Amino acid sequence: MDLHTYLAQCRELIDGALDRYLPPADASVDRLHEALRYSVLAPGKRLRPVLVLAGAEAVGGDPTTVIPTACALECIHAFSLIHDDLPCMDDDDYRRGRLTSHKVFGEASALLAGDALLALAFELIAESAAQVPAGRGAAVVALIARASGTRGMVGGQVLDMAAEGRNVGGDALDQIHALKTGALITAAVTAGAMLCTDDVRSIEALQRYGQAVGLAFQIADDILDVVGDESKIGKPVGSDVRQDKMTYPRLYGIDESRRRAQTLVDEAIRALSPLGPGADPLRAIARYIVERDV
Amino acid sequence: MDLHTYLAQCRELIDGALDRYLPPADASVDRLHEALRYSVLAPGKRLRPVLVLAGAEAVGGDPTTVIPTACALECIHAFSLIHDDLPCMDDDDYRRGRLTSHKVFGEASALLAGDALLALAFELIAESAAQVPAGRGAAVVALIARASGTRGMVGGQVLDMAAEGRNVGGDALDQIHALKTGALITAAVTAGAMLCTDDVRSIEALQRYGQAVGLAFQIADDILDVVGDESKIGKPVGSDVRQDKMTYPRLYGIDESRRRAQTLVDEAIRALSPLGPGADPLRAIARYIVERDV
Repeated sequence: MDLHTYLAQCRELIDGALDRYLPPADASVDRLHEALRYSVLAPGKRLRPVLVLAGAEAVGGDPTTVIPTACALECIHAFSLIHDDLPCMDDDDYRRGRLTSHKVFGEASALLAGDALLALAFELIAESAAQVPAGRGAAVVALIARASGTRGMVGGQVLDMAAEGRNVGGDALDQIHALKTGALITAAVTAGAMLCTDDVRSIEALQRYGQAVGLAFQIADDILDVVGDESKIGKPVGSDVRQDKMTYPRLYGIDESRRRAQTLVDEAIRALSPLGPGADPLRAIARYIVERDV
Repeated sequence: MDLHTYLAQCRELIDGALDRYLPPADASVDRLHEALRYSVLAPGKRLRPVLVLAGAEAVGGDPTTVIPTACALECIHAFSLIHDDLPCMDDDDYRRGRLTSHKVFGEASALLAGDALLALAFELIAESAAQVPAGRGAAVVALIARASGTRGMVGGQVLDMAAEGRNVGGDALDQIHALKTGALITAAVTAGAMLCTDDVRSIEALQRYGQAVGLAFQIADDILDVVGDESKIGKPVGSDVRQDKMTYPRLYGIDESRRRAQTLVDEAIRALSPLGPGADPLRAIARYIVERDV
């Protein structure tokens, strides 16, 4: 399989669906809908929705049936970026090479746009849940809610803030990113599968895949922040160091960080061994995560 | 029936369940869990969760089965209050007679506590959804998500901000509050019923009830802001006027506002006519909403 063709097809599918699911940029609620669209439809890798589709495919499901949930994951990702960028958080002016939401729409509107995207995500997940047996749909809602909250993304964000300026060790750093980045990535690939199968062995395999790939993704991100191409990653290189954040390269050096990321990718691919060729896109995505330059 | 006994019993049931559902105030994610508990368990009327229980009872359902969703509605309410109080929004120092979340935990933590509560709400709704037929559970998730987002609470908040300092008319004021307050109140009473029945006629009756009662509640709130007892309502009287907000008393005067609230209460009670004595608590709550002094 050709990964770049696969990713391009997924992205096209997802961007079309996002455009339909996002409310129109009319003036009915001032510029709120415009703010939603500005952040969600910004150019991006669409990694989380792609993982939902690939998770469904890995268990023999029809990826088109999980599209609402795939879009929901991108809404949750966008919500977290908008709130992370706010002045009381990281106070960033640029994101993905464009002005951040609060710089364009103001702080109050950005706050509310983030809130609205989290709510919209559950509307979309409900659309997927309505099409599968009750227990399965409810489990997917619970899974994604948990991955977004205190035992997931928000919890990781809090730990990350608490660690700023402190010398955290490797285990603490892993824990921060397992929650902050890993939980939602794991939820994405697992949710895609859970909407299509009840097979516990497959679902657990995808969970392990998600956890390994999530951490590898963060290490690769940290490396790009040191050696990346500013024009490609869309934000100034070196921002982690300036914010006095502990990172993998800072803790282990670039070479050892690369080795760790590669070990995690191998682990992720091994986790997929119970799954057949339907999981090939996931295998290719795992390799891509450490090879990408953006 | 005695409303005050009924409300006290509901509140006890809900506060016990909230205490169990909220994560323990340990240090695993810094003070995040403490911040969640601080806001959700603050003394309050618990109107939205009571409406979930009463909505279930109105259609002959067992109110104890909808407790997770009742708690979810209180989490969503608390999330909205935390974010409304932030410096970039209303910048309030006090709420329900206590310091606001960002005054106690800092701005970033308050922002994230709000986010976490919205996510937690959907974990709880999923718990209710898992116990009912698929379509019904998914419909409840979608209903509450929609009522929280751009076509509900967040949309109303945006319209409210846009209206500040402007002379809005009665229709625009109704629209703001139908979204900002009414949508979640309507979702509460409807969700309680939808988890227990598929009877469309009953559900539509409760929808009409919620819409009327939601608006009556807001008018009563506006009146209390003018004539209320500061020690009872827990915030300074007259804050709406100081913030240059359009209110019902300002638009219609106190007497006409009271008449409008009463008309809405009559409308709400009339909407319940297809329902039997199981809806008596809802009838009493409608009357209480305009008679309360807190």
